[in-house]
Amino acid sequence: MKLLRHGARGAEKPGLLHSDGTIRDLSGLVPDLAGETLHPEGIAKIAALDPDGLPVVEGNPRLGPPIAGTGKFICIGLNYSDHAAETGATVPPEPIIFMKASSAICGPNDPIVIPRGSEKTDWEVELAVVIGKPAKYVSEDEAMDHVAGYAITNDVSERAFQAERAGQWTKGKSCDNFGQIGPWLVTPDEVPDPQALKMWLTVDGETMQDGSTETMVYGVRFLVSYLSQFMTLHPGDVISTGTPPGVGLGMSPQRFLKPGEVVELGIEGLGRQRQDVVADA
Amino acid sequence: MKLLRHGARGAEKPGLLHSDGTIRDLSGLVPDLAGETLHPEGIAKIAALDPDGLPVVEGNPRLGPPIAGTGKFICIGLNYSDHAAETGATVPPEPIIFMKASSAICGPNDPIVIPRGSEKTDWEVELAVVIGKPAKYVSEDEAMDHVAGYAITNDVSERAFQAERAGQWTKGKSCDNFGQIGPWLVTPDEVPDPQALKMWLTVDGETMQDGSTETMVYGVRFLVSYLSQFMTLHPGDVISTGTPPGVGLGMSPQRFLKPGEVVELGIEGLGRQRQDVVADA
Repeated sequence: MKLLRHGARGAEKPGLLHSDGTIRDLSGLVPDLAGETLHPEGIAKIAALDPDGLPVVEGNPRLGPPIAGTGKFICIGLNYSDHAAETGATVPPEPIIFMKASSAICGPNDPIVIPRGSEKTDWEVELAVVIGKPAKYVSEDEAMDHVAGYAITNDVSERAFQAERAGQWTKGKSCDNFGQIGPWLVTPDEVPDPQALKMWLTVDGETMQDGSTETMVYGVRFLVSYLSQFMTLHPGDVISTGTPPGVGLGMSPQRFLKPGEVVELGIEGLGRQRQDVVADA
Repeated sequence: MKLLRHGARGAEKPGLLHSDGTIRDLSGLVPDLAGETLHPEGIAKIAALDPDGLPVVEGNPRLGPPIAGTGKFICIGLNYSDHAAETGATVPPEPIIFMKASSAICGPNDPIVIPRGSEKTDWEVELAVVIGKPAKYVSEDEAMDHVAGYAITNDVSERAFQAERAGQWTKGKSCDNFGQIGPWLVTPDEVPDPQALKMWLTVDGETMQDGSTETMVYGVRFLVSYLSQFMTLHPGDVISTGTPPGVGLGMSPQRFLKPGEVVELGIEGLGRQRQDVVADA
């Protein structure tokens, strides 16, 4: 099942993508794709509906992030061995965790906004895991029971803010519109192996990233269990699991985004995103 | 004005502390101390009420965090020159930003829960600034117009998780019940100079921290403006501005919290907190 949220920013309604390609509205049936609706029982209720009976959303609506109520936007750093190498770092002995501001979250096709003073805005295609059921001290065996589904994230990053402006990465990861999520929340039944998904990203049609979740160092099952040892994961929390090689920071010469460029990215089975790059007002 | 939230965890209601010492309920008048209620206009509406006419909350209710809907729990690292020195660090050339998970937030007198596997749980009394009005690219002159008020935070920190478990501080800052906030949100009219507040913390009655916001390196006005250059600050966002000397990490020998101990802390004009230290189940 491919769940989504359609409509204007801040006023999105829940929906799903029908196998006939139409968007069907769920707003009469669930309050939002948040909280208990993301529990396995909540997802099962939606899956039990006859999609043919749901209202068609006409036109070509904007898509928002496919989940609401995200309390934590957790990212894993240097989680692809080949990406670690391109940035001159080594694979860490256990996962590196950092947070993006939840206010950075936006829809999958919303623009990448280059903040004032930025010269090093970069891209990162990532597999996002969305939590469906509270998780604390869960084992790897239990971990997947807490996953509501998967989505694409663009973990947009300002490299100077991240690494040249005094300690900790948050500063370069949390700008507005630095967290495109979507287009869909794809439920686990459609993603039998999250560690075997091709992923790619282009800038103005030129391939920059062309990888696979196969080369992820710490996989989804491990990460959900690992993070739950430090803090309770709640429904709607997002874990963005790191990026494969091909970011602008790792190129020689380095290459960063400029207003007017177009970024496209996708992950096998999870759809694709398209973003205009714009300068902040 | 001293605003607060009273009641069981997850079901707190808004209220205020009357000058007669009673808690008065606001739940018939405002939905919660969140969002637009924290705007200057929202605060002004509450201030215009006759507190004598508000219902008394009987008994001795639990207090929750004095604000709800916190999207970002932003912390400033090494922001007291003498604290930086005690931890062997130097004052950074610009503020260090990191995030605590918003799920770490709890009431001012809720226990400090030592996570499984922790041997280095530490304390940090801090002045918290609560945002009342969205702030983006605001100048230092404008910054204080965006502040709803002040509160005490205990930025509880697990030093091994923070510094010995691979990169980035978030891991040691985000555990459940690692962010006591309150007892009150004290409005700015009662805090004429946030850079001249005495602050203290004791463990089992022994003074550990005894400082003042006077020695803060980057002050409130600067921090609100600075952070707003990187991301939009929203109503309910919390900025915890760093801790003065006296944390367990900086002692010789180092000293960390043990189950059964009691931590008390306070800031001039903002009240006090009291926490039992317990081991996680």
